[in-house]
Formats: sequence, structure tokens, C-alpha cells
Amino acid sequence: MPFGHSKPTTTIYTMTDRKKLANAIRFLAMDAVQEANSGHPGAPMGMADIAEVLFNDFLQHNPKNPQWFNRDRFVMSNGHGSMLPYSALHLSGYDLAIDDLKKFRQLHSKTPGHPEYGYTPGIETTTGPLGQGIANAVGMALSEKLLATQFNQTGHDVIDHHTYVFLGDGCLMEGISHEACSLAGTLKLGKLIAIYDDNNISIDGEVGGWFTDNTPQRFKAYGWHVVENVNGHDSQAVKAAIAEAQANSDKPTLICAKTNIGDGAPNKAGSHDCHGAPLGAEEIKATRQALDWPYAPFEIPEEVYAAWDATQSGADKEAQWNDKFAAYSSAHPELAAELTRRMKGQLPDNWQQQVQKYIKQTASDAPQMATRQASKLSLEGLGPLLPEFFGGSADLTPSNNTFWSGSKSINDGDFSGNYMSYGVREFAMSAITNGMALHGGFIPYSATFLMFSEYARNALRMAALMKIRNIFVYTHDSIGVGEDGPTHQPVEQTPTLRMIPNMNVWRPCDAVESVIAWQCAVEKTDGPSCLLFTRQKVQHQERSADQIQKIYHGGYVLIDCEKHPEIIVIATGSEVGIAAEATKILNEQGHQVRLVSMPCAETFDQQTDAYKQSVLPASCTKRIAVEAAHGDYWYKYVGLEGKVISQNTFGESAPGNVLFEHFGFTTEQIVKTATELL
Amino acid sequence: MPFGHSKPTTTIYTMTDRKKLANAIRFLAMDAVQEANSGHPGAPMGMADIAEVLFNDFLQHNPKNPQWFNRDRFVMSNGHGSMLPYSALHLSGYDLAIDDLKKFRQLHSKTPGHPEYGYTPGIETTTGPLGQGIANAVGMALSEKLLATQFNQTGHDVIDHHTYVFLGDGCLMEGISHEACSLAGTLKLGKLIAIYDDNNISIDGEVGGWFTDNTPQRFKAYGWHVVENVNGHDSQAVKAAIAEAQANSDKPTLICAKTNIGDGAPNKAGSHDCHGAPLGAEEIKATRQALDWPYAPFEIPEEVYAAWDATQSGADKEAQWNDKFAAYSSAHPELAAELTRRMKGQLPDNWQQQVQKYIKQTASDAPQMATRQASKLSLEGLGPLLPEFFGGSADLTPSNNTFWSGSKSINDGDFSGNYMSYGVREFAMSAITNGMALHGGFIPYSATFLMFSEYARNALRMAALMKIRNIFVYTHDSIGVGEDGPTHQPVEQTPTLRMIPNMNVWRPCDAVESVIAWQCAVEKTDGPSCLLFTRQKVQHQERSADQIQKIYHGGYVLIDCEKHPEIIVIATGSEVGIAAEATKILNEQGHQVRLVSMPCAETFDQQTDAYKQSVLPASCTKRIAVEAAHGDYWYKYVGLEGKVISQNTFGESAPGNVLFEHFGFTTEQIVKTATELL
Repeated sequence: MPFGHSKPTTTIYTMTDRKKLANAIRFLAMDAVQEANSGHPGAPMGMADIAEVLFNDFLQHNPKNPQWFNRDRFVMSNGHGSMLPYSALHLSGYDLAIDDLKKFRQLHSKTPGHPEYGYTPGIETTTGPLGQGIANAVGMALSEKLLATQFNQTGHDVIDHHTYVFLGDGCLMEGISHEACSLAGTLKLGKLIAIYDDNNISIDGEVGGWFTDNTPQRFKAYGWHVVENVNGHDSQAVKAAIAEAQANSDKPTLICAKTNIGDGAPNKAGSHDCHGAPLGAEEIKATRQALDWPYAPFEIPEEVYAAWDATQSGADKEAQWNDKFAAYSSAHPELAAELTRRMKGQLPDNWQQQVQKYIKQTASDAPQMATRQASKLSLEGLGPLLPEFFGGSADLTPSNNTFWSGSKSINDGDFSGNYMSYGVREFAMSAITNGMALHGGFIPYSATFLMFSEYARNALRMAALMKIRNIFVYTHDSIGVGEDGPTHQPVEQTPTLRMIPNMNVWRPCDAVESVIAWQCAVEKTDGPSCLLFTRQKVQHQERSADQIQKIYHGGYVLIDCEKHPEIIVIATGSEVGIAAEATKILNEQGHQVRLVSMPCAETFDQQTDAYKQSVLPASCTKRIAVEAAHGDYWYKYVGLEGKVISQNTFGESAPGNVLFEHFGFTTEQIVKTATELL
Repeated sequence: MPFGHSKPTTTIYTMTDRKKLANAIRFLAMDAVQEANSGHPGAPMGMADIAEVLFNDFLQHNPKNPQWFNRDRFVMSNGHGSMLPYSALHLSGYDLAIDDLKKFRQLHSKTPGHPEYGYTPGIETTTGPLGQGIANAVGMALSEKLLATQFNQTGHDVIDHHTYVFLGDGCLMEGISHEACSLAGTLKLGKLIAIYDDNNISIDGEVGGWFTDNTPQRFKAYGWHVVENVNGHDSQAVKAAIAEAQANSDKPTLICAKTNIGDGAPNKAGSHDCHGAPLGAEEIKATRQALDWPYAPFEIPEEVYAAWDATQSGADKEAQWNDKFAAYSSAHPELAAELTRRMKGQLPDNWQQQVQKYIKQTASDAPQMATRQASKLSLEGLGPLLPEFFGGSADLTPSNNTFWSGSKSINDGDFSGNYMSYGVREFAMSAITNGMALHGGFIPYSATFLMFSEYARNALRMAALMKIRNIFVYTHDSIGVGEDGPTHQPVEQTPTLRMIPNMNVWRPCDAVESVIAWQCAVEKTDGPSCLLFTRQKVQHQERSADQIQKIYHGGYVLIDCEKHPEIIVIATGSEVGIAAEATKILNEQGHQVRLVSMPCAETFDQQTDAYKQSVLPASCTKRIAVEAAHGDYWYKYVGLEGKVISQNTFGESAPGNVLFEHFGFTTEQIVKTATELL
């Protein structure tokens, strides 16, 4: 049997054994929730038997090295059931002690209320906002399939793992589950195995009043393999279902497991009373009696630990894989080196040098183009250096300009490509690329119109919360969109994206700033970036070599005056061009006006006070911010004495140049405002 | 045949006639797009035959009175095909002249790029952001069913109309179509008829690479009636399909119509080339020849106008309904008066008096409670006055406190109720309630956690863009959420909601402000409101009668000092309590500190300069804003010399009181900051 295939192991448990192993999850969950006086015991208790089978019979992992690249990925999409993965990880031997479980939901513990990526070894993604976990899992399974296609060689299946995901009624009601699962069906992600906790309960009560989908039929319509009517408390049935799923490698599988929420609690099981609140001391006592569990809270008998312990088997599995990888390295040294680089998430050695060369070239070429074209130009420059780039668009490829000359689509089923048309699925696209970033091996970028970042808003936040590298490309970034009208014209989107913690938002003003925005997004390993580009043409700005380097500071003096500035104009993106003209006019009139280009305010905010003062000296309080977006954000830089030229109303349908005039984004308006301030 | 049932009329057209009538849409669409040099000819041309049958054989409407309450509703969910409804409305006799069509996509025209509610007579909702139109239509069909149940009497079916919606591949890929259509199936909305423009094309090309759903099977899984494989260019087949849909009144119907995008254009039809760009003069000329259409651009032959003209038949239909309503009024005068009030969207006569009484009572009771409880208390006070209230929650009813003692659920199939559990479907809930607000007869309110406003973000924006009354209730409004952790703790949500134009965001600090927030949301007829409430308990604030009236100004002096203030503290919601304590301490120390409560900044911004100066005098520049949310918004009020006590990072999982301490939202912190400023 080839290593890495997660065929059922030969361990034989009796039914009683298995129940006891599963009950360990049940008691850890109910005791931790009781201790915290907060949390969700229902799902972990309901899915305990399933988790036990998955972890003990199938999951390929090494508790002592949660980073082992070829491990199976496990995602709890119904993240409120966090005590299930915490319990299973603890029991399997991860660095998650019983004391950590006792601190469930407490400040700075390893066991926050919902599973948080980076807080707990073995947690593959942060879940809780429903439906996103399954989409992350689609991204992980896609990554596996892409890497396997690109790197495996005959006799060397170095990339070969499954992605398992648990999900509940809530995930299935959320729209993102439709987007992600529809796409997974089209992509035939045969190593994706989802297990549906069909317990008939959500917070408002029995789901029959609001959720009557025939879910198996729905998933068959997506092209999934469906294993129906599995008794989620019958370990043999669960085992058979997972084995069947593994045997069907040409389609993703949904296992519909009938479960009893809060299973084991004699009075509260099967009711929404046990969904999101502690069971209470009395019911826990009754459950201990009913399940014949004579152990104290957080006490797990040694034989249960022994049966769960996956440290030796996990170490063996990774060692086997390491041997396998060594053989691959011998046979295909270049591929192995490249795969190693990509698994580590390292940029290629020649990266800095090549990028700097390209920036110099771009500055010298001085192209006059829409920044969405400059974005494509950036991709043409950086793309050849980055085989780990995986691009895509939510059905706006020709408008987003994300398909560069090195792009190759995978939509025809050839997974050697590096680009995907995601269809009109902004939310799933963003959460799938989060899954790819989490999996490793890729730097994903994906695109839509800036307006439709709203459809994906919470996935952007999740990327920022998880501090993962994901690049969100948003073109058509203002009323410059023109005739499509206010439904397609961003107003509040730019400033609101800036308010997501850990998110860098770049709104470059020309091709040089665009290339650097892309470079910074690629190099930022502690969070995502949004790159905002215009539909319409902008002017090239002349800069010294020093000024080019200052772009990396997020904000810098683009045009300065001879003396101390009387007025500072701050602009971004398409408004830098008109602000530059206005600045020149004002300076020609003998005023002292400085223009600051601020392509990334978050980066500027992180500079030293000295640098910030050198750009925006406190002594100059007459400041004007210019941005074709909602303006409240800019008072942070211009204060109560400054002026903001912005758009605090919705747009209109008309040609873009008409709208810039109509809404007052003109050189004349800036000159007039400055003159009033002087 | 009872009036209002839209059975097929007996008009007989020959096939040739009908093609010519449909071609009028085709040429208006291609000529208008060409004239604008921008737009989407493909969908109007592909769906022209379907639209012609729907408008001429089925649609119950009166072009001279687009507000006729019992009209059928028609929604173009694939809104980029706006020239289809514009053409059909023009041809039917709406106040939309040929000159209006010539101004397609121009500033201040009646024919913006996408259909905009309020710009064009006969446009029932603004569409363009894909998938939301179908959800709006679900809300309209639900409204019809609720009103019919509540008002119709034996022999008096005064509410009795269909809701038709066109939708494309894009709508079906979007997650919201899953949420909305799943719920529509559960609700058995038998008068909802959706027609799917199955043309196999989206912007990235033929959809087979990214969209392979078996859509009929998917909709059957939702409990819909599906009419499959209808030739969308065969008028008889379309007519039969719509008749079949009408005959199936116990389920919503999806008609899957195979169409040819850009049908009629000899070279570009069937390709994505005709989706979103003008066909070009040459192709238009070729189309004129191919379709034997010898007329100039925007010239429609008289016989075509005559055949489309629905003004007389429409007037007759409304007149018949008026007679019907008169008979209803005679038989059931009270019901008729109440229905009339609700159709007009007027509040009951005793509204102001009763609300003022309730506010006085609440101020006197001085309850100490979480504002989410105060919200329920508000509902207990205002709800009995408002049978038009239709409440709901996205599966968080017990947490959102939206089910008050007068609530009655419709989830058991009894449509005499006034409350719905929407399931875990935030986006659809918000777009469905938009549809209800557009339909008329209801004031919808719907709830989830503030965090999950992000899942619905673009529907909130659409409500604001359409200026419709829709009340979005968001509880758990800060790190006060506690143990659920950062995935559930809003940080940037409050300030970013405030940036949506036309949106009022209320964050009340106690029960009195909560009742007034609800009152203002109910009374605001030119846009939606967000009501943000705490999970945790807050203090009651004492106020004079005058101060209570000032709450309506959005911001007011809650605690003043004896002399001119040295420092002004501005706070909202749960932070008003700690700010009040800090203010008292500082004033006892002999400082001059004023506390401003700012429950609705948008409303405050709309006050006179004199009022604003009376609250925030320019002479006092030492200002501190306190809000447990991202703080950049507040520099607008505190300037560069002020301080903002806010949270610009993600939260953590821990009890709420621990987090308030951890993140520095304490009386001590405010006192310290003020002391530093002084």
C-alpha cells in the first residue's frame, strides 16, 4: 500500500471501546464548557463518534509536527463546536495539555471560543463564521490537487493527502456553501470529504421550519458523490462511509450523518438547549451515569489516552514520507528543491534583484495607462518569478486584467495551470484562496470589482485575522467606473477596507506605484493585502530614485515646495494626477504647497514618528485630502482645520469623466479649496 | 375568472408577429447600447421573446399607474440587461419616452446603466449586484402571501398578484440565490415565478469550465416546481411554461429557458462578445438585415407599439380592482381602512402620542439592562402599535431578543404571523426584507450579530441606495460579546456601517436611547437604519425632559460642567456608562468636562451648525472619543489635537468584562487620558 494513502488501519476496536474513546470527547467538551460557563457542547457530543473514527482510523497526521506538509487537513466548519477538535488534538498527542482545555475560552489560552489558526497546534483554519470552513477546505483540496499535478512524478507521489471537513446545518444554509461546493463539484476534488452533522437542530429550534432542502439531492446536482443516511453514532457505518468516500476519487464526497445533538445527555440531547450553553451540573452528572463515565472532570483514563495516542504512528508516517521525499529528491532534484521552497513559502533567490530591475524599467518607460493595466504589467514583471502565483477572477477576467501572458487556466481540467475562473462567486473565491494560503505552496491572488469586495467582506476579515498572505485584487475602484452606475461605483469601500486590522490597502496612482504595491503584497507574510486599481487611464508621475524607495513607506512627498509648506495636499490613486496639476498651479502662483502621495495609509502609519513628521509636519495644519471615496477616514490626517475633497454620496450612471467633473474631483476644485484655506 | 389572476389572455399572435414584437426589444437594446457606447446587449436580446410573452400575455400592470398596489411585480435580477425592462416598459406605455432610451447611461437620465429604483417608472428594485434581485423577489412574493392571508376575505381577494423574476447564470452562481431560493421553497411561495436565462455564457466565456450544476435538480432539492428545457425563443413554449407555473400554486416555479445570448446578431450571438459591449455598427447592420428590421435606430413601427400598448388594458385592470376594493371596503370597512393605511406606508394616528408616553415611562422605570434587552422592551412598547412590523432573525432569535410577546412565527406555515426565523441566511434575509419594504405593506426588521452584518453588507448598501425603510437589528456589538472570540467580536463594523450613504446607525447607551432609536428607524422613510445593541448590561443614564428630546438630534450633552468645557468626552453605547463615571470624577476634581452621548452620528451631522456648535464648540479642541470599535472614524470629531480611545486590533476570546479591562475601556483609562490632555 503506497504510503500517504489514508486507507483504514487494521486496528480493531470493539463497539464498546470505540464508544468509550468517543465519550472522552463528550466529557471533555461538556466539562470544559461547564468550566468556562460558556460554549457549545451540542456539536462535539453529537459528532464525537464520527471524530473518533476519523482521527483513529483515517487521519494521516503527526501530532508532534503539525506543520508536516503532506498531512491530511481537517477543518471544523461548524467552528462553535471547537471543543471537538481541541479534545481530539489533545487526545491524539498534540501540544495541547489538559490544563489548556481547562482554560477554554479564557484570555491568552490555547483554546479560544472558536478554533483560531495560530493559537492551537493542529487547527488548520479559523472557523466560526459559518460556511467559510468548507470553502477553506475546498481551497486546501484544490491546493493538494494542483501541487500533486505539478510536482508528483511516476513512482513519487510526494503530495497526496485528503482534506476532511465537518459541517452543520448552518454551514449548509449559508450561501457560501453553495458557491464553494458547486465549484468543488466542477473541479472534481476527489480527495475532499465533507461530513454533514445532520442533527435537525439550529439555534431557533428544529430546522424543519426554515431548512427543508433535500441536501443529498442538492449535492448530487453539484456533481458530488453522496453517502446518504449514515448513522453518525455507528462507528462501523461511519468507517464504511469514509472508506467509500476515499474509494470515490473522481468526485468530492458528502457523507450525510444523522446525529443526535448533545448525544449522551439523557435529558437535553436532541434539543437546541444543548447547542450553545453549558449543560449544567445536574445534566452533566446524569450524563456521567448514563454513559458509565466514573471519572472526574478533565480526567481521562490511561487506556483511552493510549488508544488515541497518535504520536508514534504519526512520527512513523512522517518518517516514511521523509524517506519518500528523499527518494524524490534524488530522482528529481530540481523539482524537489522547488517544492521545498514553495512548502516553506520562500520567495525565489533572484526576487529582489529582478523586481528592482523591473521597477526601474517601469519608471523609465513611464507608461500612461489605467492602473488595472498597470496591474497586469506588474504581473508580467513579477509573474515569471513566481510559479507559486495562483490567480483568478470571479468572472471578470477581461475587466480585472488578471490573466497575464504566463497564465494558464485550470478550468478545462488540466491542473498544471496557475489560473482559475471562479465563476460569479466572490465570497467563495476569497475563502477558497484563504484555504490555499493556509495549505501552503501558493501565493493566491483573486479579483473582482472593488464594489463586490462587499460580497466577500467577511473572508477578507478572516484572512486578516489569521494573518495569512492573500492578495485581493479590486479593479474599478471609484466613480471612474462610469456608466454602470452607483451599484458598481465604490464609495465607502476603500476607507472601510482600511479599517480591517492587519489589512494593507494599496491604491497606487500609476504603474510604478502599482508594481511596488504588488511587490509589497507578495512580501507581506503576516497578513493580506487589497490592491485597488482604476478602470480609467491615469498619468505617470515622475520621481527620483529616492522617491521610488519612499513608496515603500506607504506615503511620501511626491511634489515639494521650496520653503516650509503652507498647505499639504494628500491624495491617492487616480486623484494624484489632478492633485499634482493643482499643486503645480498653486506653486506657480507663489504658494508653498506640498503633495503627498499616500498609496498605503496602513504602511505609512507604521513608519517612525520622524519619518511621518518629515512628510506631514505638525506645524502645517492646513491640509487637504483628495480621494474619490467616502472622506471621513481622512480627518485622521487633516484634522478639524483641514479639508477633505471626497464623495460621501452614492454615484450616478454616466461616463466616468462626466462624473469626476460632476462630483468635483478636478484640479480647479483643489486649487479653489487650497485658495480658501490660505 | 377572478380578477387579478394572471391567466393567459386570449390574444392570438402569429409566430411572426411575436418575433417582431420581441425584435423591438432587441433593436432598442442594441441601438441604445451602441448610442451609449457602453452596456449589455446580450441578455436583452436573448430574453426578448420571453419578456414579450410575459408582458403581453401575463403581466397584470397599469403603465399609467406604476404604484397600483396589486400589480404583478417584475424583477430583472440579471440587472445588467437593463435595456430589456426599459424597452418593455417603454413599449407598454410607461412614462419612459424614446428620448429617455436615447439617453441610456447618461447623467440624470431615467435610464441608468443598471435598473435603479426611483429613477424609472416600473422598475421595482435596483439590480446589478447579482443574486439580490431574486432575493428581493422572494420578499415581494412573501409580502403578497402574508397580506393575502391577513387581509383577503371570502369573495374578496384584494391581494392577489404574481412576482416574476428573470435571472441568469451569475445570479445562480451567487450564494445568495441558494439562501433565498432554499427559503422560498420551504415557504412554498407558489406565486413566485423565476425564469432562468440559460445561455451558457458568462463574462469569462462558456460556463462549462466553472458552472456545471444540474440546476433543475438543485431547485427540486429546494422544493421548487421546475419546468425544464424550455426553448426561450419559442413563444408558445414560454407561454405554456408560465401557464404551468401559474397552475402550480403550492410551490415556487423555476422555468429553465434555453436561450441564445445576443439572439439575432448573426455573428456575435452565442458568444460572450455580445455580453457586455456594444455590438458595433457593422454587426448591428447585419442584425437589421438578418431580422428584416428596416427601421432606423429608435424607430419602432406603429403596429408594434399598438400590439405592446398596455395602457388601456392596464387602466381597465386597475379599475376592476378598484371596484373590487370598493366592495371589500363596504363589506369589511375596518380591514380596508387598515390595509389602505399599510399600502400607503402611514403610521397609525396614535403613534406619536403612544411612543412619547412609552419613552416617558421607560425613563421613569430607569431599567438597568443590556441594550439588546432594551431593544426587546422597545418592541414591547412600539410593536402593539405596528401590525406592519415583520420581524425575524438569521437563527439567533433567542440572542437577538427580536421575538417579543406579540410575535407570531410563520415558520409553521401559518402566514397570519408577523415573525420569521430565516435560518442562517444573513444576506438573503437582508435582501428579502428589502423586497418586503419595496413591495409595501410592511416595516421589516431583521437581526443577527453585528459581526454577521458583513455577510449581508451589500444588501444594506442596496437598501441605502434605494432609500427604503428597512431596519437592521445587530446585537453583540463589541468585544462585550466575550468568550466567542474575535470571529464574533465586531471591531470595524460600527464605523464602516456609518460610512454607507443614507444609512443611520444607532448605538444607544441605555433603554431610553434604545426606544428612541427604534422610533427614529420606524419614522425614517428615506433610508434604512442599523440598530446596534450590546450583549452585556449597561447603566441607565438620568436625563431631563429636554435632554430626552435632544436624543433625536443624534448627539447631545448628557453631562455638562459648570463653566466652558476644557475637555469634551464623546461616547456611544456601552462606553457612555464608563465615560459618565469618568466625567463625574474629573468634574469632582475641579475640571470642566462635558460628556456628549452620540447615539447616531449621521443624525447629529444633519443638525444646524448652531446646534452642533452648542454641543461641540470649536473653541474646545481637547476632545476624547470613546468607542469599543475601530477609532479612525472619530478624528472627524476630535481632530488632530484630540484622543480616541478605541480598538484598532482584533479582539480575543475571554469573558467580556475581562476584555473591556484588557483593551482599556475603563473609567480609569478615560480619566488618565483626560488628565494627560489637560
